[in-house]
Amino acid sequence: MPAQRLSILVLSGPNLSLLGVREPERYGRTTLGEIEAELAALAAELDVALEARRTNHEGELLDWLHAAVGVHDGIVINPGGLTHTSVVLRDAIAGVGLPTVEVHLTNTAAREEFRHRSLVAPVAVGAIQGFGSASYTLGLRALVGYLRSRAPRDS
Amino acid sequence: MPAQRLSILVLSGPNLSLLGVREPERYGRTTLGEIEAELAALAAELDVALEARRTNHEGELLDWLHAAVGVHDGIVINPGGLTHTSVVLRDAIAGVGLPTVEVHLTNTAAREEFRHRSLVAPVAVGAIQGFGSASYTLGLRALVGYLRSRAPRDS
Amino acid sequence: MPAQRLSILVLSGPNLSLLGVREPERYGRTTLGEIEAELAALAAELDVALEARRTNHEGELLDWLHAAVGVHDGIVINPGGLTHTSVVLRDAIAGVGLPTVEVHLTNTAAREEFRHRSLVAPVAVGAIQGFGSASYTLGLRALVGYLRSRAPRDS
Amino acid sequence: MPAQRLSILVLSGPNLSLLGVREPERYGRTTLGEIEAELAALAAELDVALEARRTNHEGELLDWLHAAVGVHDGIVINPGGLTHTSVVLRDAIAGVGLPTVEVHLTNTAAREEFRHRSLVAPVAVGAIQGFGSASYTLGLRALVGYLRSRAPRDS
Amino acid sequence: MPAQRLSILVLSGPNLSLLGVREPERYGRTTLGEIEAELAALAAELDVALEARRTNHEGELLDWLHAAVGVHDGIVINPGGLTHTSVVLRDAIAGVGLPTVEVHLTNTAAREEFRHRSLVAPVAVGAIQGFGSASYTLGLRALVGYLRSRAPRDS
Amino acid sequence: MPAQRLSILVLSGPNLSLLGVREPERYGRTTLGEIEAELAALAAELDVALEARRTNHEGELLDWLHAAVGVHDGIVINPGGLTHTSVVLRDAIAGVGLPTVEVHLTNTAAREEFRHRSLVAPVAVGAIQGFGSASYTLGLRALVGYLRSRAPRDS
Amino acid sequence: MPAQRLSILVLSGPNLSLLGVREPERYGRTTLGEIEAELAALAAELDVALEARRTNHEGELLDWLHAAVGVHDGIVINPGGLTHTSVVLRDAIAGVGLPTVEVHLTNTAAREEFRHRSLVAPVAVGAIQGFGSASYTLGLRALVGYLRSRAPRDS
Amino acid sequence: MPAQRLSILVLSGPNLSLLGVREPERYGRTTLGEIEAELAALAAELDVALEARRTNHEGELLDWLHAAVGVHDGIVINPGGLTHTSVVLRDAIAGVGLPTVEVHLTNTAAREEFRHRSLVAPVAVGAIQGFGSASYTLGLRALVGYLRSRAPRDS
Amino acid sequence: MPAQRLSILVLSGPNLSLLGVREPERYGRTTLGEIEAELAALAAELDVALEARRTNHEGELLDWLHAAVGVHDGIVINPGGLTHTSVVLRDAIAGVGLPTVEVHLTNTAAREEFRHRSLVAPVAVGAIQGFGSASYTLGLRALVGYLRSRAPRDS
Amino acid sequence: MPAQRLSILVLSGPNLSLLGVREPERYGRTTLGEIEAELAALAAELDVALEARRTNHEGELLDWLHAAVGVHDGIVINPGGLTHTSVVLRDAIAGVGLPTVEVHLTNTAAREEFRHRSLVAPVAVGAIQGFGSASYTLGLRALVGYLRSRAPRDS
Amino acid sequence: MPAQRLSILVLSGPNLSLLGVREPERYGRTTLGEIEAELAALAAELDVALEARRTNHEGELLDWLHAAVGVHDGIVINPGGLTHTSVVLRDAIAGVGLPTVEVHLTNTAAREEFRHRSLVAPVAVGAIQGFGSASYTLGLRALVGYLRSRAPRDS
Amino acid sequence: MPAQRLSILVLSGPNLSLLGVREPERYGRTTLGEIEAELAALAAELDVALEARRTNHEGELLDWLHAAVGVHDGIVINPGGLTHTSVVLRDAIAGVGLPTVEVHLTNTAAREEFRHRSLVAPVAVGAIQGFGSASYTLGLRALVGYLRSRAPRDS
Repeated sequence: MPAQRLSILVLSGPNLSLLGVREPERYGRTTLGEIEAELAALAAELDVALEARRTNHEGELLDWLHAAVGVHDGIVINPGGLTHTSVVLRDAIAGVGLPTVEVHLTNTAAREEFRHRSLVAPVAVGAIQGFGSASYTLGLRALVGYLRSRAPRDS
Repeated sequence: MPAQRLSILVLSGPNLSLLGVREPERYGRTTLGEIEAELAALAAELDVALEARRTNHEGELLDWLHAAVGVHDGIVINPGGLTHTSVVLRDAIAGVGLPTVEVHLTNTAAREEFRHRSLVAPVAVGAIQGFGSASYTLGLRALVGYLRSRAPRDS
Repeated sequence: MPAQRLSILVLSGPNLSLLGVREPERYGRTTLGEIEAELAALAAELDVALEARRTNHEGELLDWLHAAVGVHDGIVINPGGLTHTSVVLRDAIAGVGLPTVEVHLTNTAAREEFRHRSLVAPVAVGAIQGFGSASYTLGLRALVGYLRSRAPRDS
Repeated sequence: MPAQRLSILVLSGPNLSLLGVREPERYGRTTLGEIEAELAALAAELDVALEARRTNHEGELLDWLHAAVGVHDGIVINPGGLTHTSVVLRDAIAGVGLPTVEVHLTNTAAREEFRHRSLVAPVAVGAIQGFGSASYTLGLRALVGYLRSRAPRDS
Repeated sequence: MPAQRLSILVLSGPNLSLLGVREPERYGRTTLGEIEAELAALAAELDVALEARRTNHEGELLDWLHAAVGVHDGIVINPGGLTHTSVVLRDAIAGVGLPTVEVHLTNTAAREEFRHRSLVAPVAVGAIQGFGSASYTLGLRALVGYLRSRAPRDS
Repeated sequence: MPAQRLSILVLSGPNLSLLGVREPERYGRTTLGEIEAELAALAAELDVALEARRTNHEGELLDWLHAAVGVHDGIVINPGGLTHTSVVLRDAIAGVGLPTVEVHLTNTAAREEFRHRSLVAPVAVGAIQGFGSASYTLGLRALVGYLRSRAPRDS
Repeated sequence: MPAQRLSILVLSGPNLSLLGVREPERYGRTTLGEIEAELAALAAELDVALEARRTNHEGELLDWLHAAVGVHDGIVINPGGLTHTSVVLRDAIAGVGLPTVEVHLTNTAAREEFRHRSLVAPVAVGAIQGFGSASYTLGLRALVGYLRSRAPRDS
Repeated sequence: MPAQRLSILVLSGPNLSLLGVREPERYGRTTLGEIEAELAALAAELDVALEARRTNHEGELLDWLHAAVGVHDGIVINPGGLTHTSVVLRDAIAGVGLPTVEVHLTNTAAREEFRHRSLVAPVAVGAIQGFGSASYTLGLRALVGYLRSRAPRDS
Repeated sequence: MPAQRLSILVLSGPNLSLLGVREPERYGRTTLGEIEAELAALAAELDVALEARRTNHEGELLDWLHAAVGVHDGIVINPGGLTHTSVVLRDAIAGVGLPTVEVHLTNTAAREEFRHRSLVAPVAVGAIQGFGSASYTLGLRALVGYLRSRAPRDS
Repeated sequence: MPAQRLSILVLSGPNLSLLGVREPERYGRTTLGEIEAELAALAAELDVALEARRTNHEGELLDWLHAAVGVHDGIVINPGGLTHTSVVLRDAIAGVGLPTVEVHLTNTAAREEFRHRSLVAPVAVGAIQGFGSASYTLGLRALVGYLRSRAPRDS
Repeated sequence: MPAQRLSILVLSGPNLSLLGVREPERYGRTTLGEIEAELAALAAELDVALEARRTNHEGELLDWLHAAVGVHDGIVINPGGLTHTSVVLRDAIAGVGLPTVEVHLTNTAAREEFRHRSLVAPVAVGAIQGFGSASYTLGLRALVGYLRSRAPRDS
Repeated sequence: MPAQRLSILVLSGPNLSLLGVREPERYGRTTLGEIEAELAALAAELDVALEARRTNHEGELLDWLHAAVGVHDGIVINPGGLTHTSVVLRDAIAGVGLPTVEVHLTNTAAREEFRHRSLVAPVAVGAIQGFGSASYTLGLRALVGYLRSRAPRDS
């Protein structure tokens, strides 16, 4: 019997739909749509299923995380500015228990002091920041590698 | 003319619908539905009306608090992770002016540093934490006692 | 060809719909509806278009800010308690790039310590606080003055 | 063979003997004697043994805690001002190992900054504050519930 | 008998006489003299008396504030860098008891950390910052509005 | 009918019995007994009753403060090192409600950082420090003056 | 040859000339003139010369302190709000080397956080606060006692 | 004439009588009685007199320290939780002036943040922590070595 | 003429040679030699030159970074514990000016507080942490992607 | 045409006129007059004009700095205790825009904590501290060197 | 077969070779060579092998710690000033896993604030400070005792 | 007999060999070699011997400082980034006891927060920063002046 394909949920939080449109000198000219297309291509290459969602609403991120249990095998999340303030997002990730990779387009350590701490990072598997849209694809690659290394191999 | 029965609104904030399902070693195996049933039973015993609501959305908690004026006599609230971050929840409770009891399933003082401060507590009547699902029933008991002690008795 | 009339979006955040109803000793007896009417009158006097919106949901403020690009020329915002906690609101204002004026009914510097810092202020043009409902009208006046001083005059 | 009745020790620390006599606007008009009578009544109702003690001496609280081992099944303690300063009280509670519930008449979160941290809370089962003398009775109820839920039932 | 015309004192503290001359990229090209002329014009329009003074000496600001009692009805003050350091200026404003509006040309929240706290703000009616020379005229407007709203109307 | 003579309780806390014996370069060569004799002489001169007590036990200070109600009219206290750590002493003074003057032999502001804050001072009438044994006599004089200025005069 | 009479300089800093006129509920109804008269009377009683000065200018306090060398034997100073901010006043007192007693009318420990630290206190002999105008007379008494205890006696 | 034998006082503070009985996984299974017996044996080996006392009362430690002057030559003290909070214990050790060695069974640096600072350490000769009951015997050895190295040798 | 192959320097700082040997439960069982072999394989796949070095000496890392100018096109560095303390490493990376990617095997955000801040991160292009040995290969991939995206393409 | 001689203004702030007279063990025995003479001699040697002023008044320093524009080419300033507290002095130096060198006689880093931060330093060219009166002459030398290195040479 | 003799490595970090030569009033007149001789003598007495090394280079301490695995049974280390700054030393000790005792000649708690925290202590068995060269010999004794108490006895 | 010529050791720490090569907009275009040549010329002019060394290794700076005793009369040191982190460098300077002048090319007060504190400064004679390569020559001048002013003159 063939092994089940891994399924990954990619979540983009507040203001990320502005990508490529606003402040291109900081965030680059790639739109979130283009990033999601790159992710879809990489998912195909890595042979995993991938669903991408975006919202400005913290509560909606929580609803989606709760609903991911039993549906997805891991999460790639760019929580945007919620990274630094949202205890409930942290609690949702910890509570849901799915392996989660945190990604940021910019190098948060080189920005304002209040962006240096991530409330999400301690409950994530790991984090990748500073590589523009490539942070997402590196994050997907990292998550798939992580999931495959701890899963029993197909046989 | 008989006195009016007290009416209590019980609010459960972000991630509390995960109760009993996720992280049982921390939060126990009782679901939020079972807690609400216990509350309903106690409400009957104490002869008060009770309505219980749950949401992952901060804004929805505010909508419900605003709408409670003139409908309910007091609030039992478990704000979840919003406890430590939400100035707007604090402002809503203070603005609405209904006596409010804050409850937590876990003993927040024994957890991470950032869970030690509650923004809500200073505008609440009091708080109860650490007794699992019993925190809710103790909170209901405390609120009803508080409301009855300051109200003129039926006669 | 005549110059285009300026268009201003006025946003009122969490709990501001309680104005005039709750805690009048702190916030006065003017309702948010009355404030919006005053703003409409002043907008007419200043010959600008004005749209006023209110919500308890942070995410909705973000949605509206994103949608304001290309529609409005500037923002007057009273973020309520989000002022002190919302990195995503700050990011939305910075990302959208529309000149924004922050207003508060009360003098936040004379209140609790945690209200002294505004996360929004550093990305705003300026701020006005402490004048009750007049903070809104002064804010509108300030914004229109700002927009007109940097725009090429009608000719 | 019938199960043994639970035995509860209630400890009131420094200045609590002033209750009902001094600063009634803050602490109410109920004396500590009256509270202890309420507790005795509730203990009878809950069918548990109860012993109540009071002292202004930190060292005496420690002596009593040490002596409680093998005699009592749990502790309800109002440590008064020692809550915020006494590492030795914390160590005694942790060292003695009896389930302990911390109670406060006032809502400490609404008072001076230095009353916000409890050194005792992290080693307690849970805490109840803000309900006047009812904090004690709620605390007794919470403790008995806690002890019964983890003990094997009578059979 | 006709009502008395309101009288406003406008105070500009240390370094403000450099306005329009030095660092125009930060403070603009308008001189303090031009600002005072704008204020005089607005005072005439609002039908209030106005006196404007400027000094580099903290002590002189205090002398003038003391002397304003019984002469002026309110104060518009730009304390410059004293805003962040002068307890005596704060005490003078509180002691003199005249309604005071604090104004700043720049958005102090977007500058150095040590400019974020104003010692004066908590004893002022309100504050306006970030609108260049318009901060002064908005401040005058705000103060006159404030004084008229709390005074009995002419009749 | 003649007015009642004022009665003052003078309390000396931990380690003060070492005065004059140990560390004379810091605390001088006057013993606590000699200070108490000076106080008795001044009390006679001021025509007030005076009782002086000393202890190394925090709890004993509290017992004595509680017992002073209805017996003494005011307190002069040198809390020694408890000044900086004892919330229960502060609570006792506030709870007992007798006008209290805090005295220190040394100038605490010129010593270690942790001696700069007094927990007792905010609930005292005032404080006197740095004048060696004269701090006690000045404290007695200050307290008697305070009590007489607010009491109705003998007639 | 008879010993020289001691000469004391009493300095009152910013805003103290408002005493008795403004905020009487905080500072009492005694004017600074009346306090200076009380001091003159006490000086006569203690057989010391006394000169009293007042100013709103920090620099003037420094000028007077410098000029006091060789003229006066000690200083009683109420630095007002400079207490908490003025390093130069501290340096002047330390540099001039005359024994200095710091006095405050109010109990600074019971006021705003920023009034708890005195920059002057560590270089003063001692401090007296909280006794209204009596703080000045107690301060004079304390200073004269201090000067006499360390001086060789008349013979 | 033969030299006098050194006399050492060993003091054990709050909760140390629980040793070997409670929390053996942290503190080991040796009782305080057994430690005192080891100390007595080592004292005999080192040819010094030794007296060991224990109490839960801070005030009693102070009484004993005061009484040690002229009786003992040095102190080995395990202040338990008072280590981190007791200014009066520090003052007693400094005031009494006997060479003092601080010992702890556990490695306080590896425990809670609030146990990292010792108020006693700065007035002690040195400190030893982390070696279980051996901390006491090493402390005795260290103290005797210290006393002998600074005393004139027997001759 | 063919384009030049990119050359990457991989640096491993203090204690990384312990990898796979010590604390495998935290760092995994892969040795640094095995990681370097994986990197060599990936470098071949990506068609870049790669040199890997390791040292326990901060100064040696600096020497190598200085020598990399003109030799390598970018740096992948795991600074180990120097991440959190070494200003000179940060200065070397900034001074040398080669694009640098910071990698960590563990998720530093989930470890001790002092590991949360990286002094190196603000001068790096970006960072990757938490994926064990895969952090290195992801880092190489990220760096090569970064270098190729900003370089003119071969033609 | 010959090049214009550089003109330097040397400012000495509060308490510096006490130099050589008070606290010689800290500040040495050289008077400010002697320092100014040394400066005059060095100015002649370096062929620059020099004017030296001193005051205890912060406001006067500002007046002089404002007046220096167009008259002097650079400033050597010893702000005394204002270094650590005066935002207005910092603003004056930044606003006036003349190259400024900060000098201190003592090594401020070896003194009290509150002297470690200079508000002036960030807007100065550089600073020199710890060399007694030589700090002034080194400062003059440094400033002249700085001005000459950035100016076009005489020809 | 006889049990293996324990082997101890003693490491002395930066500046310890200055011992006995520089600052004897703080560190005593014993040289590091003399201390090592005392250690050798004690090692013989305790029947353990001992190797002592010293270096000014942090990296060399790490090299030696790594090389100690399988060679030595425990470490006595005086890290000198690295105690307070070196995360890599801490990581080396934790990574190598050999029982380590930290020793200091002086009582670090009685010195500068920045010496109060040891980064090494939390990963050490325990620490001994303040006894001059005896800290080393007490440390050796403590380590040998620790190693023997947890090892199976010779038989 | 002629007096001995003074001998000065000039030490340049980590990354200073990059001077003139990297980041010229911050550090200028002068190389460290050119600076050392300027120093040699000035040494000749001042008639002192001078030796200049540079290293990236903290331990090597310590070795050289230790070796300087008895060879050199004073130190000019630019510790680079070690300034802010190296307790061992501070200890070496204090331990060696040679008068030391700290120099920096840039104005550290105008850079990142973590560069504002120097661990070395409190044990140096004084410091000079902000004058580019002239900081070194001013430092040499300052040190020679310092050494000559405290030494007995040639005769």
